[in-house]
Amino acid sequence: MTDIIIKKRDGGELSKEEIDFFVSGVTDGSVPDYQISALLMAMLLVGMSDRETVLLTLAMAESGDMLDLSSLGDKTVDKHSTGGVGDKTTPIVASVAAALGCTVAKMSGRGLGHTGGTTDKLESIDGYRTDITEEEFLRNAAECGMCLAGHSGNLTPADKRLYAIRDVTGTVESIPLIAASVMSKKLAAGAKHIVLDVKYGSGAFMKTPESAEELAKEMVKIGKSAGRKMTALITNMNIPLGFAVGNSLEIREAVSVLKGEGPSDLTELCTELSAAMYRSCFDCGYDEAVNSVKEVIKNGRAFETFVKAVKLQGGDVRLITGERDFPNSESSREIFAESDGYITSMDCEAVGRAACISGAGREKKEDVIDLSSGIILKKKTGDYVNQGEPLATVYGSKNRISEAAETLFRAYKIGSEKPKQGPLIYKVIK
Amino acid sequence: MTDIIIKKRDGGELSKEEIDFFVSGVTDGSVPDYQISALLMAMLLVGMSDRETVLLTLAMAESGDMLDLSSLGDKTVDKHSTGGVGDKTTPIVASVAAALGCTVAKMSGRGLGHTGGTTDKLESIDGYRTDITEEEFLRNAAECGMCLAGHSGNLTPADKRLYAIRDVTGTVESIPLIAASVMSKKLAAGAKHIVLDVKYGSGAFMKTPESAEELAKEMVKIGKSAGRKMTALITNMNIPLGFAVGNSLEIREAVSVLKGEGPSDLTELCTELSAAMYRSCFDCGYDEAVNSVKEVIKNGRAFETFVKAVKLQGGDVRLITGERDFPNSESSREIFAESDGYITSMDCEAVGRAACISGAGREKKEDVIDLSSGIILKKKTGDYVNQGEPLATVYGSKNRISEAAETLFRAYKIGSEKPKQGPLIYKVIK
Repeated sequence: MTDIIIKKRDGGELSKEEIDFFVSGVTDGSVPDYQISALLMAMLLVGMSDRETVLLTLAMAESGDMLDLSSLGDKTVDKHSTGGVGDKTTPIVASVAAALGCTVAKMSGRGLGHTGGTTDKLESIDGYRTDITEEEFLRNAAECGMCLAGHSGNLTPADKRLYAIRDVTGTVESIPLIAASVMSKKLAAGAKHIVLDVKYGSGAFMKTPESAEELAKEMVKIGKSAGRKMTALITNMNIPLGFAVGNSLEIREAVSVLKGEGPSDLTELCTELSAAMYRSCFDCGYDEAVNSVKEVIKNGRAFETFVKAVKLQGGDVRLITGERDFPNSESSREIFAESDGYITSMDCEAVGRAACISGAGREKKEDVIDLSSGIILKKKTGDYVNQGEPLATVYGSKNRISEAAETLFRAYKIGSEKPKQGPLIYKVIK
Repeated sequence: MTDIIIKKRDGGELSKEEIDFFVSGVTDGSVPDYQISALLMAMLLVGMSDRETVLLTLAMAESGDMLDLSSLGDKTVDKHSTGGVGDKTTPIVASVAAALGCTVAKMSGRGLGHTGGTTDKLESIDGYRTDITEEEFLRNAAECGMCLAGHSGNLTPADKRLYAIRDVTGTVESIPLIAASVMSKKLAAGAKHIVLDVKYGSGAFMKTPESAEELAKEMVKIGKSAGRKMTALITNMNIPLGFAVGNSLEIREAVSVLKGEGPSDLTELCTELSAAMYRSCFDCGYDEAVNSVKEVIKNGRAFETFVKAVKLQGGDVRLITGERDFPNSESSREIFAESDGYITSMDCEAVGRAACISGAGREKKEDVIDLSSGIILKKKTGDYVNQGEPLATVYGSKNRISEAAETLFRAYKIGSEKPKQGPLIYKVIK
């Protein structure tokens, strides 16, 4: 192992045997943490060739169980977002793609950060079981074209150990390591088509479109090398997506999009992502794909698909159809504009932090999420406000609401000039 | 700690507080190995400023006991060699410097590598106690001007932990880290004057004179910043020093130098080192210092000082005066030239390895050294040999002698042209 570290440190390219030796030592525990962190730092500072990154990803994907989706046909499609504030696209695009004949059999993780992950969001629907067996997972996906569940079994254990070490050794910020981490999970998850939503901006891990593009290209390259059909959208995360941030609040907003009544930015992004999923599986033109997406939203088939999927997984569909309402949070607090003007920018990370403080997210793995807490924004970047006009409402428990509201208030910048805004979709990479 | 790692990774200069936090965490165990190794790799790849290196060295020096030699006056002088094959200069230069009025109160480590350290070599003298109390150490040094003992107490514990981690994480080859490791021990050892023998060549850690010079300059800079008077000699280690490699064999050769009958290269190096020690303490010219050194060898005062020092520490002086001989090894084997020609080069590292195989060194800390084993060279680089002429004799236990002899044989290269040889002393840095 020391020889492998020295080779990378001195700029050498690691062989398949060396990378496999490293990853199997990470997985079975035979390589100690201190050698792992030294190699990770050398990988970050010296860099990795494309070949090394692909080999590392494959070894990590194969370090645990590999899901076999072959019984579901060749239109299995997965979508992954690198994470943003208010991102509730997964249940929406899964329902749309399934309504269009794709199969979305997707296992999602729990969130660590401002809000829960997709699994937490879905669990805000009473009775919804994310914790199902592989048989049930495949059966549900076959029956209604989609199944959103939690991770079961032993997926990419090498990534779990590497990520835990990277987090405390300053070795997170490496594009090859980030790409290998994401793509190892996607490859192990088994779908033939993969659509990536790589976000940049104040609410994303990558701060600039250029760095997001670099990451996207790396991931597309890896996926193609492993025989998957890849599409990556580089999207803007300088403004929270939609108006809702927080688990049950986001499910409610997702439902509104499926009913054709959602916020325009969220609807636009979901349309683009679903169209990309559809085009990947059915090889059609862009306009045709977008029209098909709009059609299944308009005619209600996307919404029906979601209702069916929720039902199959034991969820109370009345929360989706509107016959019953999600429980309210313990308390709420509105925040107001202190001056007239345009909202010139929002610190998305601060919005996420405010949601987390309200109870919507986890700081540590053990933290329990309050599924009803979070934020409903009323104004976003580019909007004009008058002094005293409400900007947003924070929902959460009494003892946290003040801190959350203050954090959210500081996220808004108000000025006299209407800000220029970049496009929501910066680029598509295939 | 993660913030400190990230700062260094991104090219920042660590502050005194950050370095002190790191070193105290290394010492008390509160910083885990994996964070230490990540930071060490970042330090190696990104580099360290002079200020950081000095601060790191001082923090490491102060991580454990600091020897107080102030009771011995202001002519306390320490000598350190970065390690070579056949390097038995310490007992020689200590005796010469003490005979000239300096005080050499020196604690040496045990060796890990081709032969034992100074402590092991001295223990080949029956009865010699390296394991003495600090009081005895200071008393002996005061009485005869020198005391060579083993490390007692808790000297530079931070360096011990860092070194153990560097050894298995590919983070040894960093000039600032090497300099900090050596100099932290020298500063903790308390002498006011420090003379460094920084070796380069096939038998040394630094392979080129340029890299040895870089290391020497770094160490001189650190020592000066800590108020010590520094001299560093850059010396050639492409040929073993003297003819003896192995513990009791080296003591015998050291005695021959003190009697004025030693090999010319070893005598020359010891003269230069002792003169540097003398000049540092007494501020005289080079010629005067060299003449004084030659004088105390010629008139026997250096040899008498050594005899007195050995006696004070319980050693059987008859082994030094020649009244008794060192015990013989279990077996010996001669190796011979297989062709006529000049010895064009010797792989010093292989010579060291052969000595280690014979039983003279340790591969692991727990290994027991056979003090009578080792090598007596008869021919060295530049000598002309006829086919069948003896090159060297290996001493050791029966079961190891063949492998040791073969390794040694392969270290010799014989060719038709007399090789050019660089000077023994490449440069002096103050």
